[in-house]
Amino acid sequence: MQRILSTQLARHAGETVTVAGWVHRRRLLKSVAFLIVRDAAGLTQVVVTEPELRARIEELPEESVVELTGTVTANEAAPAGVELTGAELRVLSAVGVPLPFELHRPALTASMPTQLDHAALALRHPVRAAALRVAAAASAGFRAALEERRFVEIHTPKIVASATESGANVFALDYFGRPAYLAQSPQFYKQLMVGVFERVYEVGPVFRAEPHDTARHLAQYTSLDAELGFIADHRDVMAVLTDVVAVMTATVAERTGVAVPEVPAEIPALHFAEALRIAGAPADEPDLAPAHERALGEWALREHGSEFVFVTGYPMRKRPFYTHPQPSDPAWSNSFDLLFRGLELVTGGQRLHRYEDYRAALAARGETTAAYEGYLDAFRYGMPPHGGFAIGLERFVARLTGVGNVREVTAFPRDLHRVTP
Amino acid sequence: MQRILSTQLARHAGETVTVAGWVHRRRLLKSVAFLIVRDAAGLTQVVVTEPELRARIEELPEESVVELTGTVTANEAAPAGVELTGAELRVLSAVGVPLPFELHRPALTASMPTQLDHAALALRHPVRAAALRVAAAASAGFRAALEERRFVEIHTPKIVASATESGANVFALDYFGRPAYLAQSPQFYKQLMVGVFERVYEVGPVFRAEPHDTARHLAQYTSLDAELGFIADHRDVMAVLTDVVAVMTATVAERTGVAVPEVPAEIPALHFAEALRIAGAPADEPDLAPAHERALGEWALREHGSEFVFVTGYPMRKRPFYTHPQPSDPAWSNSFDLLFRGLELVTGGQRLHRYEDYRAALAARGETTAAYEGYLDAFRYGMPPHGGFAIGLERFVARLTGVGNVREVTAFPRDLHRVTP
Repeated sequence: MQRILSTQLARHAGETVTVAGWVHRRRLLKSVAFLIVRDAAGLTQVVVTEPELRARIEELPEESVVELTGTVTANEAAPAGVELTGAELRVLSAVGVPLPFELHRPALTASMPTQLDHAALALRHPVRAAALRVAAAASAGFRAALEERRFVEIHTPKIVASATESGANVFALDYFGRPAYLAQSPQFYKQLMVGVFERVYEVGPVFRAEPHDTARHLAQYTSLDAELGFIADHRDVMAVLTDVVAVMTATVAERTGVAVPEVPAEIPALHFAEALRIAGAPADEPDLAPAHERALGEWALREHGSEFVFVTGYPMRKRPFYTHPQPSDPAWSNSFDLLFRGLELVTGGQRLHRYEDYRAALAARGETTAAYEGYLDAFRYGMPPHGGFAIGLERFVARLTGVGNVREVTAFPRDLHRVTP
Repeated sequence: MQRILSTQLARHAGETVTVAGWVHRRRLLKSVAFLIVRDAAGLTQVVVTEPELRARIEELPEESVVELTGTVTANEAAPAGVELTGAELRVLSAVGVPLPFELHRPALTASMPTQLDHAALALRHPVRAAALRVAAAASAGFRAALEERRFVEIHTPKIVASATESGANVFALDYFGRPAYLAQSPQFYKQLMVGVFERVYEVGPVFRAEPHDTARHLAQYTSLDAELGFIADHRDVMAVLTDVVAVMTATVAERTGVAVPEVPAEIPALHFAEALRIAGAPADEPDLAPAHERALGEWALREHGSEFVFVTGYPMRKRPFYTHPQPSDPAWSNSFDLLFRGLELVTGGQRLHRYEDYRAALAARGETTAAYEGYLDAFRYGMPPHGGFAIGLERFVARLTGVGNVREVTAFPRDLHRVTP
């Protein structure tokens, strides 16, 4: 018999159906036993009164995989208004060892290291699984928004000959006997592909050999990258990003039911100099400290009713060499951060697009073009003004769901201490 | 003035518009000059009669980035029925060096190494760009088909503690002073995630340290992976794959206009033993040689009018340890290959789902469970019967477009000799 999902049960009242899933919980009362079966869609309550079936269930640990064929019976007291009665049980896979932690409580009580050691089990907990569904919805929204705006999906190399963003924090690799590195971002490649498609995006892994053991750093994370050509300046990028974040949050809300913030049609934007003033920071600060970002988040909410705020014009000396300076004052840049609830969510900006400007920018930082030759080649052959942004998927999900540690919203996190499972 | 695309020109006949793009070609005739401007959508013909503008264009090499504002004028002889006249030119980025090859001819004549050395330029050729649009459409179709069938997108680790598929062909990495490897496939992780979502998919890079310099091997390629639980056997996987390939080819046709083969609602399937007989191979051959696959492709076309054919039941000794044996004869397996025009396109099958079966399978191959402990852990905690498949995106595109070398359909290929640009 064709299996149906727990959420389809109610429309089959009175019929005989088959459900399948994991034994989420057993409740063994005196006169009756309840078997709660979890599938990808939700939970099914199975009522067991037959002594023989009850005896089998008593021996069947949580997380065993089962298939049950029975009658869908209305019961107002049951979780979905229906339950399965008179069921026949088929065990697909029995658990033979004690579970390291229980999955049927509202929250996982195991420590984070224990959860991560047994990630394949911990991720089955509805709260952990829900966070990954938010990630999937956010990625889908990112792609849908960009496809709609004629961005083309690309796949770029993750093994590169030189460090992408800086020499630090890069994983070294033995590439057929030669040194190579894991890409810290698709930055260069997405810029080059603007020369092909004008507008491109990539959803893929990036790698940072982060020596810091914090709640927000991972050695591998999923980067949602976009880049577009023929822009006037960074404000065109900010407009696309605003639309993209709106579609991402709407897709999360629609698919998962998670409460999402309203994205204003125009997100308030502050120049860095103004941001320092509002945050009460000295005018010569080169960057925003976490306390400043929080103050700006409060300002945006108070003054504009917005949970989002753009800060533009970050000092050039704190931005990567490919950043386009602010034409009116080259100490500032045509770059931005998008803050959400007082935390940095996205970084982006306009990039240099002329070969000579790259040479000059690298020379000003005391670097030669040698390490970047393959990348800079494209800029000799005509590139339009362009810019883009990158969203860290795990951070986006953590901030949207109010989770403090990115490891809680990552399936199998990689960090300073962890390369398994 | 808001820029419009080349393909939008015809609806603005008689109006003044702005177009922008790359100088694709200049045709300098005696009394008139034509400037062909390429943008992401196509080509625009600009007619130049003014001497001053002509002089500027004579000095403006191909691939320079330009913006032109002029009048859309009907001309039946022009490529799109319209052309731009009386245009004003603004140069956004001038090319100052000779191009290593010309982009305006129907095909790139430069050698493959030269094209790859200057990939950012070569990919601008409409034929090369079109192949990457086919890849983007194929990925979009893959995801759409699976989302429709309640698969959830996942992102899995690319840095792993032990080799995924086998100890060979794996890239070694320095992971914070410890050895680690680049994942050869998301195989284990997608299986574990069946325990969470029942049905999952991933589009992401996989890494093979292929020591062979061939037209079909890359050190990094994009793998389209899917895995689903609660199956009866591999035939349920084949049914999903058939649907997925149909949506992929339909999406390619719809988005790119590339001619695609018809995917039969039920693709003909042969057991390996029968396939050997049809291919005229000895009955004790352990695998299909390229000539056998070609013979099977011809057979499927002749007998069933299908360009696709499934071969099932491959000998267990040629399949990975996680493969589920054929219940009626464990020398064969519940696995399959999908052949397209006589070439292997997809590999898949049913996997083992019980911990004891994994222990036994590894023991039979003389391996211990030690290297796979983190992976096998999930199988102690209840996993349903499941299976899946993996499609190599670049091979899929190469075979669909009839291209012989996967490097021609890959943006920045990585192989034995190449790690740049």
